Amino acid sequence: MMPLMPRVAAWLVFVFFALSYARLASSRPSPKSSSAWMRKSPSCTVPTAQLTTAPKSNVWSGLTDTEAASVDSWLFGQKSLNLTVSKKAGEWDNSILLIELMLPNKTGVLEYLDKEGNAPVRYAHVVLDVRATTEPYYEDILVGPLPVKNGTTTYQPLTYPYTRKTGGRVRNLDADADDTLYKYWIHKISGSILDITLDLWNGSALGFGNDTLDIWGQDPLWQDDGIIRWDQFWMLPTDEFDSFTLLPLGLYFSSNITGRNPSKWSFEGWLYNNVYYSTTEEFRAAYYSPGFEKLKPNIQGPWANTDQQDTAPPLDTSYPPISVTPGGSRYAVDKEQKYVKWMDFEFYIAFTRDTGMRIYDIKYKGERIIYELGLEEALAHYAGNDPIQSGTSYLDSFYGFGPFSFELVAGYDCPSYATYLDSSFYTVETTHIHINSICMFEQDAGYPIQRHSTSTYVSVTKNIFFTIRNISTVGNYDYMFSYSFYMDGSIHVEVRASGYIQSAYWAHNGDYGYQIHDALSGSMHDHVLNYKVDFDVLGTANTMTTTTMVPVSESYPWSKGKARNTMKLQRNQIKTEDESKLLWGDNGATQFTVVNLDKPNAFGEHKGFRVLPSRGTAHLTVKDSSNLANAANWATHDLFVTRRKDTEPRAAHPYNSQDVNNPVVDFNEFFDGESLVQEDIVVWFNLGMHHIPHTGDLPNTVFTTAHSGLQIMPLNYLSGDPSRETVNMVRIDYKNGSVSAVDTFGQAQMTCNADIATFEPDLYSYKGDVVIRKFPYDPNNPYYETDDG
Amino acid sequence: MMPLMPRVAAWLVFVFFALSYARLASSRPSPKSSSAWMRKSPSCTVPTAQLTTAPKSNVWSGLTDTEAASVDSWLFGQKSLNLTVSKKAGEWDNSILLIELMLPNKTGVLEYLDKEGNAPVRYAHVVLDVRATTEPYYEDILVGPLPVKNGTTTYQPLTYPYTRKTGGRVRNLDADADDTLYKYWIHKISGSILDITLDLWNGSALGFGNDTLDIWGQDPLWQDDGIIRWDQFWMLPTDEFDSFTLLPLGLYFSSNITGRNPSKWSFEGWLYNNVYYSTTEEFRAAYYSPGFEKLKPNIQGPWANTDQQDTAPPLDTSYPPISVTPGGSRYAVDKEQKYVKWMDFEFYIAFTRDTGMRIYDIKYKGERIIYELGLEEALAHYAGNDPIQSGTSYLDSFYGFGPFSFELVAGYDCPSYATYLDSSFYTVETTHIHINSICMFEQDAGYPIQRHSTSTYVSVTKNIFFTIRNISTVGNYDYMFSYSFYMDGSIHVEVRASGYIQSAYWAHNGDYGYQIHDALSGSMHDHVLNYKVDFDVLGTANTMTTTTMVPVSESYPWSKGKARNTMKLQRNQIKTEDESKLLWGDNGATQFTVVNLDKPNAFGEHKGFRVLPSRGTAHLTVKDSSNLANAANWATHDLFVTRRKDTEPRAAHPYNSQDVNNPVVDFNEFFDGESLVQEDIVVWFNLGMHHIPHTGDLPNTVFTTAHSGLQIMPLNYLSGDPSRETVNMVRIDYKNGSVSAVDTFGQAQMTCNADIATFEPDLYSYKGDVVIRKFPYDPNNPYYETDDG
Repeated sequence: MMPLMPRVAAWLVFVFFALSYARLASSRPSPKSSSAWMRKSPSCTVPTAQLTTAPKSNVWSGLTDTEAASVDSWLFGQKSLNLTVSKKAGEWDNSILLIELMLPNKTGVLEYLDKEGNAPVRYAHVVLDVRATTEPYYEDILVGPLPVKNGTTTYQPLTYPYTRKTGGRVRNLDADADDTLYKYWIHKISGSILDITLDLWNGSALGFGNDTLDIWGQDPLWQDDGIIRWDQFWMLPTDEFDSFTLLPLGLYFSSNITGRNPSKWSFEGWLYNNVYYSTTEEFRAAYYSPGFEKLKPNIQGPWANTDQQDTAPPLDTSYPPISVTPGGSRYAVDKEQKYVKWMDFEFYIAFTRDTGMRIYDIKYKGERIIYELGLEEALAHYAGNDPIQSGTSYLDSFYGFGPFSFELVAGYDCPSYATYLDSSFYTVETTHIHINSICMFEQDAGYPIQRHSTSTYVSVTKNIFFTIRNISTVGNYDYMFSYSFYMDGSIHVEVRASGYIQSAYWAHNGDYGYQIHDALSGSMHDHVLNYKVDFDVLGTANTMTTTTMVPVSESYPWSKGKARNTMKLQRNQIKTEDESKLLWGDNGATQFTVVNLDKPNAFGEHKGFRVLPSRGTAHLTVKDSSNLANAANWATHDLFVTRRKDTEPRAAHPYNSQDVNNPVVDFNEFFDGESLVQEDIVVWFNLGMHHIPHTGDLPNTVFTTAHSGLQIMPLNYLSGDPSRETVNMVRIDYKNGSVSAVDTFGQAQMTCNADIATFEPDLYSYKGDVVIRKFPYDPNNPYYETDDG
Repeated sequence: MMPLMPRVAAWLVFVFFALSYARLASSRPSPKSSSAWMRKSPSCTVPTAQLTTAPKSNVWSGLTDTEAASVDSWLFGQKSLNLTVSKKAGEWDNSILLIELMLPNKTGVLEYLDKEGNAPVRYAHVVLDVRATTEPYYEDILVGPLPVKNGTTTYQPLTYPYTRKTGGRVRNLDADADDTLYKYWIHKISGSILDITLDLWNGSALGFGNDTLDIWGQDPLWQDDGIIRWDQFWMLPTDEFDSFTLLPLGLYFSSNITGRNPSKWSFEGWLYNNVYYSTTEEFRAAYYSPGFEKLKPNIQGPWANTDQQDTAPPLDTSYPPISVTPGGSRYAVDKEQKYVKWMDFEFYIAFTRDTGMRIYDIKYKGERIIYELGLEEALAHYAGNDPIQSGTSYLDSFYGFGPFSFELVAGYDCPSYATYLDSSFYTVETTHIHINSICMFEQDAGYPIQRHSTSTYVSVTKNIFFTIRNISTVGNYDYMFSYSFYMDGSIHVEVRASGYIQSAYWAHNGDYGYQIHDALSGSMHDHVLNYKVDFDVLGTANTMTTTTMVPVSESYPWSKGKARNTMKLQRNQIKTEDESKLLWGDNGATQFTVVNLDKPNAFGEHKGFRVLPSRGTAHLTVKDSSNLANAANWATHDLFVTRRKDTEPRAAHPYNSQDVNNPVVDFNEFFDGESLVQEDIVVWFNLGMHHIPHTGDLPNTVFTTAHSGLQIMPLNYLSGDPSRETVNMVRIDYKNGSVSAVDTFGQAQMTCNADIATFEPDLYSYKGDVVIRKFPYDPNNPYYETDDG
């Protein structure tokens, strides 16, 4: 149970302050009623985003409530689909998994944005879970055009964006996972060794409400010789903390669950303490033999709890620094169109089930520089001497980043003065709205963007930057996705990871992680997160160039015939898709820049945007992963360049895990030797971390060191540094200890009072998700429900 | 000239606000005289550092004024040294270049810190410039013990910290650079082609006050066949901006200046437009030949000025976000002893001429983890098709980071609420005090340090960190050095670069940089900055270990004889100095951790601190640099491990450039095969950037992308994440759209008013350096003078 005293104490403190504040607020004289009040500095502006109107409709924005409901209704009207409402659907019923906007093809969008064409015709992307068959499958279909009209609206298999050509269908390996798998298989196996689970852990996992153990296993399933799964016993947390991935028990078993008839499934064997037993009898016999080593369990305790613990450090209980916005917001938002403008940047926000927040049509100084920027997929590839860790390679878009992009905590996840936007996703005939799940804010970086000192003057420019952020908690891990924009025209793409690690049981596996608790291994794993960035540098015809610093021994006209050990640049272009899988390379010697070769600057250099790793990045350590086969071929290198095609919009598909040998999207198939010179090209880059969790990852991994980032910076794009345009700079002229001039370039000094209470969040307003039913459509009865999976 | 209107306008705005503020301040009712005033929220605490007393004296702190003056006086009393006061010393006089504290040997310091021994006996480290000889040299000597007493105080050559054993002496290649070099050589050569400089640039460099051209050249000088220098003509800036490194003119000449008799020096040749002329006659003949191509000059203009330019972006003139400290300072400082304590970290600050700010005796939770952390040397290695760029490899400690660590601009270089410390350096019989040249402050990172969301609760912890910073402007470049401390026990070492690039003239050198202006190349160069970190993890006996993720194909008891493509860890130790030059390696696969093998944690893992690159790092591209020979052998790899010795305190020496083949400190000689297992070891690591300046580097390079950093993080050092101890976290329990509990763990909400004006700096208080004369000692007549070299 939760320790009671500290929380009661905190509550009392809170009530005291809340009451004090309420009293102060109510007794505060209004500005008009008190001359004394008038005489002091005015209160600082309340920071709400400036209003603006998007120049065009956001064509990437999701379906409206009405659109989604009408597609739902229309689908249930198609008798041939034989659909059952999700909540009533059993394992042998067909149901709707997803209804969302089919993101329009770039070709059509550019007509609309740049050439006064019509907005692209809208279609719904629908995923069906077809299980009323012995060969269950997921099916991607298109429904449209929208709005739905009987007679004109049709559905068709969605095939063009996928490399696999199987009519938008891929098998469903989880068709029986809701019910049959546990009820008729896993819990029976667990029951077959109830004596042992009771003896070892005084616990059971039988599917009852009072189970103290849980059983779960690998992802993806093995698909080479039938469908094989390994499962492990885990202790259930004994308090409210979400530490279930920290409590492995080290007993594993394997099942061949090929086909939909559990009577044909087969038990394959047990693993305990690194010994494999091919039958339960064998395992039991060994268990009751003299000298059998019984391993200790991992048990929930304060070590797994995230609450404040131990004595706070000196002065920690004093209120910490906080950022405030005395001048109000300096950015403008069209909340309806999810359009944002900050300084010389502007863009649209989209949000999808698979990958969460994306950004479209990033313009800088009025020119599009990036058509699309967003996450494609995230891989967490584990390894170990046990089959669960060895077999686990999560492809997180299977779960989806959209469904788990929860409400942000104002003042903690983002400054309280941030502007918050909602996002939504469709599931189970409802739309879930994540309230305040996207934040955007300005901040002072704490270091200048430019400075120079001399003996007579000093020039310094503040580094005020703008961030847009969301956080997706996919099970145990919290991924924080930030896109930051800077006054020098650079964009910083960052991901940080916190939350609970997935641990391993500690037994003979020192080669796969550190021992971090009683019987716990911090299981080694790679995070690789693939992003798409579709640059449009002065048009769509772009080229990836490289500039590499290489050591050379070279003679010069003036070196008197002597060779000098020095260095020079090798300038190159990535000419075709045969040479476009790229590594950052040794010592960061190569700089990668997307340029427009047809648009040189005044000096003949090509205007472009450079991509550079800025916070450490990683590609996958494992070669030809047995778990992944062809399902994550985007993870092998640091960055990739391909020809942009309407038929290759995404590097991955959420159901790639269902057929890893023949995945829906095999990224390798994008590489077919096409020319990349002055074509519309896409750069796919990987962020990531090699993670060997240590004791400092308990209870949670920390964002400080679990980070990865890439910067996108203008290179020879403008004639000079654009941060010279901000007035948030100073030049001080001085001599002999006195200042002769302070030039703040029109930026006024500030004299207002920032009431810190107004910059403190009202944490009691946290709500979680709002759900709106779509079938039957019931928009007027939303309810609150947050589902973490 | 500076554009007048904007500055006048800014002044008027400032005056208006200053007057308004003064009026407000004077008419503001005192808290006691107005009940209305009392009723509002109180003003936030004024943030001044908490006071504390250092547990021990700072034995690394510089000499006292009295000590320095007494050494000065004593030295001038030693007739055998034949010293002349610097201001009066000519090229054939001996003078004192440096008097500072000889940093005590660690052996002695640990006796004092840990074993109640006496503080180490103090000595002055003195550098003499011995030029009253045909073979001029710099001489390092020790003077002491201090305090100076006639009879007991002696001087001796300083030799033990240097690998070169020449009695603390190294030749001085600049003995005639003050006067003779220019007056009797360079300006005569310039005069010999006055017709050409007038024709090309309507300018001259003759040593007169109205010169419009300047001449300067490479560093270090070539030392292979005599002492050779190349010089270039540069345009002088025509306004007050410090853009002299942006105005090369592309005409170069070479001189052999071996020896001290200029009459024996020889002119070697001209270079123009990539054509070499071995005599002036030859050059002149060519110049006046038909078809001779005259290249255009680089001329000062707005492109080279750092002031605000063009139209400010939308909303930029609104006041930006600012960090405030409603709870006051949460760290404690002993300004006298330069001792700092923040949360569970504490340390002492030192400051030296050569490398500026250093940190000593970093304790975390009461245990020393690092004995010493600081910069050793910074290299800027250029390359080009011209002899200046090709020959330039600045070793910046020659100039010194201490002398150029200028006053910081409050509110711009650091938050205005930061605590500022002074630093000082000795030169020309004076001590210069850099007022407010070190800052320290807390800040909210803008992202949490930990978080986890579930469907029933969310837990988030603020990431409040502490930074100590100084900035050294070595000529054109501003290096910002930050050390940041985090609640998870990690330390972030960062350097960022701004200021003016050193450019090259653009002529046939596209292989060495981009053309960035009319006739300007952004000259390619490597920045490599070497740092020393002397870890003491639970004592001085430490070992560098590596843990590498490697792809493997491996069978397991449960894999039915099938090999699986997966990965595992290779754990290793760096056993001797034969294997201790290290690279981060491909894909960041290797993790480097300094541990104490004798102090395993409860699980048998070794407690330690990991070092990881966090912002991009670089080692030197050039192999066996012709410029550097043995002078910067610390630049070849990413990190190095050596046995710590009192005789190897520094990786470099400021006069390494004077004899690059036989430098005072040849870092390679530290590597003599000694065991590194459970020894007192030092890690030397390199930060750096490969810099190919582009148009965005004009007028100044920006800190956003010119950055490098390394994190030091506890690894298996504690039993869990220490950030669980802060109260600056929240847990919100919620369900169905309402919050059942908000636990802020005793951290109160804040209700004060932050008067933004008090968080704005008084920029008119900027002063620059204070100088105190040491010989003759005149402590009561300090004067202001800032010298940028």
